[in-house]
Amino acid sequence: MTKPLRLGVAGLGTVGGGLVRLLTAHAGRLALRTGRTIEITAVSARDPKKDRGLGNALGNVTFHADPVALAKDPGIDVFVELIGGETVAREAAEAAIAAGKPVVTANKALLAHHGRELAAKAEAAGVPICFEAAVAGGIPIVKALREGLSGNRIDAVYGILNGTSNYILTSMAESGASFEDALAEAQRLGYAEADPGFDVDGVDAAHKLTLLASLAFGAAVDFNAVHVEGIRQISALDIAFARELGYRIKLVGIAKATDDGLDVRVHPAMIAAESALGHVDGVFNGVVVQGDFVDQMAFEGRGAGAGPTASAVMADIVDVALGLHLPLYGVPVAALGGARVIPVTSRFGASYMRLSVVDRPGVIADIAAILRDEQVSIESLLQRGRAPGEGVPVVIVTHEVQEAAMARALARIAALESVLERPTMIRIEEIK
Amino acid sequence: MTKPLRLGVAGLGTVGGGLVRLLTAHAGRLALRTGRTIEITAVSARDPKKDRGLGNALGNVTFHADPVALAKDPGIDVFVELIGGETVAREAAEAAIAAGKPVVTANKALLAHHGRELAAKAEAAGVPICFEAAVAGGIPIVKALREGLSGNRIDAVYGILNGTSNYILTSMAESGASFEDALAEAQRLGYAEADPGFDVDGVDAAHKLTLLASLAFGAAVDFNAVHVEGIRQISALDIAFARELGYRIKLVGIAKATDDGLDVRVHPAMIAAESALGHVDGVFNGVVVQGDFVDQMAFEGRGAGAGPTASAVMADIVDVALGLHLPLYGVPVAALGGARVIPVTSRFGASYMRLSVVDRPGVIADIAAILRDEQVSIESLLQRGRAPGEGVPVVIVTHEVQEAAMARALARIAALESVLERPTMIRIEEIK
Repeated sequence: MTKPLRLGVAGLGTVGGGLVRLLTAHAGRLALRTGRTIEITAVSARDPKKDRGLGNALGNVTFHADPVALAKDPGIDVFVELIGGETVAREAAEAAIAAGKPVVTANKALLAHHGRELAAKAEAAGVPICFEAAVAGGIPIVKALREGLSGNRIDAVYGILNGTSNYILTSMAESGASFEDALAEAQRLGYAEADPGFDVDGVDAAHKLTLLASLAFGAAVDFNAVHVEGIRQISALDIAFARELGYRIKLVGIAKATDDGLDVRVHPAMIAAESALGHVDGVFNGVVVQGDFVDQMAFEGRGAGAGPTASAVMADIVDVALGLHLPLYGVPVAALGGARVIPVTSRFGASYMRLSVVDRPGVIADIAAILRDEQVSIESLLQRGRAPGEGVPVVIVTHEVQEAAMARALARIAALESVLERPTMIRIEEIK
Repeated sequence: MTKPLRLGVAGLGTVGGGLVRLLTAHAGRLALRTGRTIEITAVSARDPKKDRGLGNALGNVTFHADPVALAKDPGIDVFVELIGGETVAREAAEAAIAAGKPVVTANKALLAHHGRELAAKAEAAGVPICFEAAVAGGIPIVKALREGLSGNRIDAVYGILNGTSNYILTSMAESGASFEDALAEAQRLGYAEADPGFDVDGVDAAHKLTLLASLAFGAAVDFNAVHVEGIRQISALDIAFARELGYRIKLVGIAKATDDGLDVRVHPAMIAAESALGHVDGVFNGVVVQGDFVDQMAFEGRGAGAGPTASAVMADIVDVALGLHLPLYGVPVAALGGARVIPVTSRFGASYMRLSVVDRPGVIADIAAILRDEQVSIESLLQRGRAPGEGVPVVIVTHEVQEAAMARALARIAALESVLERPTMIRIEEIK
């Protein structure tokens, strides 16, 4: 048997604790699969004395206060980065790379912002950076894109990549609750942070989508070029109308290769209820990949939590133990393709818009005239309820139209005196 | 750059042709990913002169009439077996292994029957056998089980593994057609063979399930111990009742680890419409994996066809090119665990039964008495339509019960003079 693989684990929070438990539970199984013992020999954590309920699992390990010192510890072969953030995590990862040690990380923000630089450094040092746990929790989607589907030109990737947002949208759909109430419930249950912006404003999903798009297209996509919208504006009313129209509202990440560049964006969208992502509910994540030979592939699983994330981290560690070494984005840095991201204004697609209008004759005619002027073609129009002289909802579904034209129409409609609130616009996306 | 990887491809049928096209389309992309050129240098086919619409893609390759001669050809580094069957394919695979060449195969029958022996030979020779394409077409499920989820104890695998059967069941559900009519349509469309037994009798699904179960449990499951039923007995009436009860009827493969042994079986089952496999329709395949850390993971994609299968074959070839070498079942042959398969009679679960009974007072009481005697508890009972003195359908859904008791009850019910046809029994399975 080869000598043991010695792990240095930075961070003993939820995921770190899960990893310790996984290694304790499956040491024998993992040794059989890799032909060597895998053991944690050093860790770093803010408070080494804190009781993490891990019993004697960490009995003999070296504790470091500083993750960078851990990364440099000659007693570890692999640096497992589970602290998050972009400063210390980056410094520690770079220290590990400089010391010739493979890096396993769950840090999507780090890679979405600095992936290309880290990939170049790792390549120069001849060590792999593995990040299965950074995207879609337990779903082995990085492995699928980098290896399992490597015989395909990937044309598109669609994902429900943030469990917190999906939980909130699902709970709004089930209970009819408002965003605020559903968020409060998610916070009470521990599915949402006290400061939920990272999740509900789409940032976390965009980090993950940046990585998926980079892998799919063999290009280092610039996170800052990705259009990002969150779910705070979604109302229970929109969710109910969506259902009536045969759709579900989901926070989706979309990455498509087009002739003009990469179309990469995160926003709430209406997707067909019976599409592969339409039934991905609650804290689950889902990813759909469209490849030229494989056609459509869908993956669904838990996107977060100690167990699923530890499962993904462990898969990377097993790869390292087996000597599998792939470039971060699947291809060498020098071979990365163009990653021009096209602006969302060039989107061409259908949309849903909901208006609150004064219930009086002529209002619909004004709106229809604006849409006609802007060349936005109406697929259907619903007006519900009567309340003469007061506000009633009007829902319009458009045919496919250029986003810029849609934006002009919306601005003009919003300015009508008979339109009472800022119009809601939700893109309708076909997952294919 | 490392020297080219030279492939010998046995079989130029649908999948072989797809592989040639894939390599032609993506030669550059694949070279970037593997750091070496991948090329077909020799092939074997029954008729070397046949026009396969591949143009000049095979211009310079050596043609062999005999796959065994191809496997021994010193001009190839990898033997790609796409001929199917268990005799010549086995001989050729063994010849390749003896010559120290990795084998990539799409042959589920070969591995389901002779996997353990081939694994032992490959292990002794130090070469890998890769078989991503043997299970679930383009879905990278072998990689997921062997690598992506390797940190888990797998507790269960469920799969819709035969596209032909699934197409027939879906089309029966959509059109209300009989099995015979739906089969004929599938044959006309090329989704079913002239002799459809392999697909509709569950044999093909059982081959694939045998491999999934072996991978999942690290054991060489004996194909002959797997309980197999097909879909010929499923009627449009059962499908309609299933829908009414919130279920779909699917041909499912089930592999569960239990305290008494492995529960491995293929049969039609009612599964919840909203479960992860409930919406896998048409020619698509789906696999659900239950792992102790990752929890539930679902995969869906095309289970057959030139493109998806070539995608899976290519993923294996890329692994070989990258030097990834795993044991066939994920663990060395010497470490394979016990693979005792428990009989289906020990199943404990709910069932649906449909009877055709004479519409007269007392019949239900007789049936209920038998069920009571055999300790089969009724969850619901539906009687539809009235036709005094003639046959009407009665549907009974039981609570969870031992299969042996259910079988005794069914035999006694079938013998009742008021029961007109052989009762239909379909197991209700919870995918979790």
